[in-house]
Amino acid sequence: MSGHVYVVGLGPGDERHRTPAASDALRIARHLVGYGPYLARASVRDDQIVHASDNRQELDRARKALQLAADGEAVAVVSSGDAGVFAMAATLFEAVEQQGGTTCEITVVPGVTAMTAAAARIGAPLGHDFCAISLSDNLKPWETVLQRVRAAAEADFAMAFYNPVSKARPWQLGGVLDLLRELRAPETPVVFATAVSRPDEEIVVTTLAGAAPEMADMRTLVIVGSSATRCVPRGGEGAWVYTPRRAEAVSS
Amino acid sequence: MSGHVYVVGLGPGDERHRTPAASDALRIARHLVGYGPYLARASVRDDQIVHASDNRQELDRARKALQLAADGEAVAVVSSGDAGVFAMAATLFEAVEQQGGTTCEITVVPGVTAMTAAAARIGAPLGHDFCAISLSDNLKPWETVLQRVRAAAEADFAMAFYNPVSKARPWQLGGVLDLLRELRAPETPVVFATAVSRPDEEIVVTTLAGAAPEMADMRTLVIVGSSATRCVPRGGEGAWVYTPRRAEAVSS
Repeated sequence: MSGHVYVVGLGPGDERHRTPAASDALRIARHLVGYGPYLARASVRDDQIVHASDNRQELDRARKALQLAADGEAVAVVSSGDAGVFAMAATLFEAVEQQGGTTCEITVVPGVTAMTAAAARIGAPLGHDFCAISLSDNLKPWETVLQRVRAAAEADFAMAFYNPVSKARPWQLGGVLDLLRELRAPETPVVFATAVSRPDEEIVVTTLAGAAPEMADMRTLVIVGSSATRCVPRGGEGAWVYTPRRAEAVSS
Repeated sequence: MSGHVYVVGLGPGDERHRTPAASDALRIARHLVGYGPYLARASVRDDQIVHASDNRQELDRARKALQLAADGEAVAVVSSGDAGVFAMAATLFEAVEQQGGTTCEITVVPGVTAMTAAAARIGAPLGHDFCAISLSDNLKPWETVLQRVRAAAEADFAMAFYNPVSKARPWQLGGVLDLLRELRAPETPVVFATAVSRPDEEIVVTTLAGAAPEMADMRTLVIVGSSATRCVPRGGEGAWVYTPRRAEAVSS
């Protein structure tokens, strides 16, 4: 009998943003596989077996899950946010392809991804056309990152940056912000949303002129507005940030 | 006393993909405001008041919600998917700005957006850098849509197209597919995901060469792969579609 791999997105943090389908998959699974800090956010029962690994070991983790499922087990591969956005779902299918297919069942359970959770806390900066770019260059050349940011600026997308910094990559975000300062107005709104919906959540709204890489850490999602993105004073203090549905012609 | 506006994303369809936070907001609200077919997906109690409107009346709907909240009411403005992605959150802040601010509380409750729900059903086509573009040209010039698609192709993004067709816009999707056929390989995977997670769900995987606008209706989310997006045979029948985390240099 073949088993079942559930690739589960936990949502941004708070369990109130985790879907019932994700909670069900975590309940059904006998094995929970994932990056340690994400597994710590799942409620593990005594009869469940936890396989925690480091954050550079995605492919090993995927192979482990497929092996357990080939042995007939129900396995949940756990990601933060949505499993399909810079997370474990792509890695799992990479492992499936490398091993020449699988007979086990695979269900990808979607979740609330970091960029829409971050956007909701500050208004609606992703209310019109936008893109999502990972700043990790472990797996892609740095020049590709810059080329994508340039094209995204040409498209006048709002931009969501995942994995903006890490210990191994302290300088990338600064490079992208410098590039964007050549391409977009200095008053363009920029949002640094850290640990969204968790107890230590921190949201900073600034401008492209004021944005600094030190405002981000590994738990931060960075949003840079399009040319249309605007701030509206928030009753009391601070501002809402939103991108109108209406777009003017792009000059190019 | 000022009221509270909750801008709520219901998720793609099935309640199993609706977050507890969204369900709570629907419970707390005394007034439910939204497009009729979306409100039909919320469970309405006898003591709740429903304000259903047509799908071209977003701004009126937002003003109505703000008015009710100014009168001290708890109001839920209901969107499908995630409220911040081509949905009511941006419209609400547009209305706030137009009326010069508000003293009522606003909470945007995120949800699972259509593109990640669609992606999950077919694998992980949004597993690496991607963009989201609305093909509606009610509110933006058609040339802007084409210019964005061109820039997105240059960035080698996977692309998710919202609002691909409507009665008033039967030809846009065909125009975009024709443009993409000039810019991307004919074997590029294309996914048409209609009514995801609903009883009448239909998922079609084809190629850019085989993609036709008739495969989409108003309930369809269209995903066009990047140059790296690949198919893996699915045990039994059909294929998984995924975009690897690894990207090569983009030629430009």
